[in-house]
Amino acid sequence: MTPVARPTLPKYYRIVQDITALIQGGRLRPGMRVPSENELIRRYRVSNTTARKALYEIEQAGWVMRIKGRGTFVQTQNIQRSATRILGFTRNIIEAGQQPSTEVLHADVCRKGYSAVVNGRFYVMKGPAYRIKRLRFANDIPMMLEERFISLELCPGIEARDLKQSLYDLYERKYGLTLTEVNQMLSTTLIRDELAMGLFRICEPTCAFVVDGVTFCNKELILEMERSVYRGDKYRFSVRAT
Amino acid sequence: MTPVARPTLPKYYRIVQDITALIQGGRLRPGMRVPSENELIRRYRVSNTTARKALYEIEQAGWVMRIKGRGTFVQTQNIQRSATRILGFTRNIIEAGQQPSTEVLHADVCRKGYSAVVNGRFYVMKGPAYRIKRLRFANDIPMMLEERFISLELCPGIEARDLKQSLYDLYERKYGLTLTEVNQMLSTTLIRDELAMGLFRICEPTCAFVVDGVTFCNKELILEMERSVYRGDKYRFSVRAT
Repeated sequence: MTPVARPTLPKYYRIVQDITALIQGGRLRPGMRVPSENELIRRYRVSNTTARKALYEIEQAGWVMRIKGRGTFVQTQNIQRSATRILGFTRNIIEAGQQPSTEVLHADVCRKGYSAVVNGRFYVMKGPAYRIKRLRFANDIPMMLEERFISLELCPGIEARDLKQSLYDLYERKYGLTLTEVNQMLSTTLIRDELAMGLFRICEPTCAFVVDGVTFCNKELILEMERSVYRGDKYRFSVRAT
Repeated sequence: MTPVARPTLPKYYRIVQDITALIQGGRLRPGMRVPSENELIRRYRVSNTTARKALYEIEQAGWVMRIKGRGTFVQTQNIQRSATRILGFTRNIIEAGQQPSTEVLHADVCRKGYSAVVNGRFYVMKGPAYRIKRLRFANDIPMMLEERFISLELCPGIEARDLKQSLYDLYERKYGLTLTEVNQMLSTTLIRDELAMGLFRICEPTCAFVVDGVTFCNKELILEMERSVYRGDKYRFSVRAT
């Protein structure tokens, strides 16, 4: 027994590979229909169990969406996000081969600072903090809605900068800060109020990940705190436990 | 600036501490009403902003649930789960101060084995594998629904054992296996079909975490693969990114 298959791959996996290759290669594009169970049975000469397993796996991996009575359609590609690596949205999207962009929804100064409870511990950032609310896109599709509170003590003058860019880049390049740790708590929410559904351009209530995070720089200092909503229909978080 | 507040805590946090202490101490039990915004304003002589912030924080931390027009009620305590530590359900629940229990829903042998894609990589477990479906409880409340495929090559005779117990314990104590890594992918789902809602004893569709995992022992060997559903209204996953 080995972690990765070597000798012969099961039949259904050949179908999975073929279809995902067509999607990755751009021959099957988002919204297009993929072959039905019956078409797969005929084309590959497999049982309906095998065809069904192939479609199920492709769906589980987030490549396609099945709509009852209508067929199976290519999804906009999912984004996989490592939860154990300090990783900004921008770099995550670029590494996934997509085009990141950002819309700034709101920004202001909180004189009093900000505090929050993350993983059972109380964190406080003394004022002034810069609050910024942004909507983040991948290939023009809204993926994540974030509210961040940034220490103005550590990042003086950040208000005057272009806030459409990667803040992680800004922290490191312009302020010379080294991000050392992000302590984050993942919970779930149902996106269902009209405002949020409008921002995400979704028509029905959709599950989402909520990330409450505290980012430290230079070991001890709280650089920012965030509360971000990642669409559950487009995101996967990967974690290795050891 | 320090990571943890030292000098003076904000007023709202004193309220948060008082109420969570009452819940943790068992004086406010699940289902009981907690003081309303107006009661907090009177009792603590604070502004409505402060009272609201306190209730909001207690709710965000998962201690209470607000029901429109009816009040704020103590929730069954949330479970925090570290995603970066190899941690069985049983130990997780005990560490949270609750009582774990298990109902075995189904068990059979899959002669052909099992395979799945986790974090973009294809994993295959040669047959025979033992499939087991269990519902896991904390203080008699259904928390998690799991389907596991266990290598019968590594755990011969596991079918004959008491499957209500912790499998992680069994692997280590009875089979002398050392768990070395769990590669897991977190996604979300909406629990909404009648069967699942019945098992979880919930009355309305509820978000949940889905964990697809591969557990390795002795470095290279696939010991088990799982697909588990953790209730989103009762679970938080903690992760540190570095």
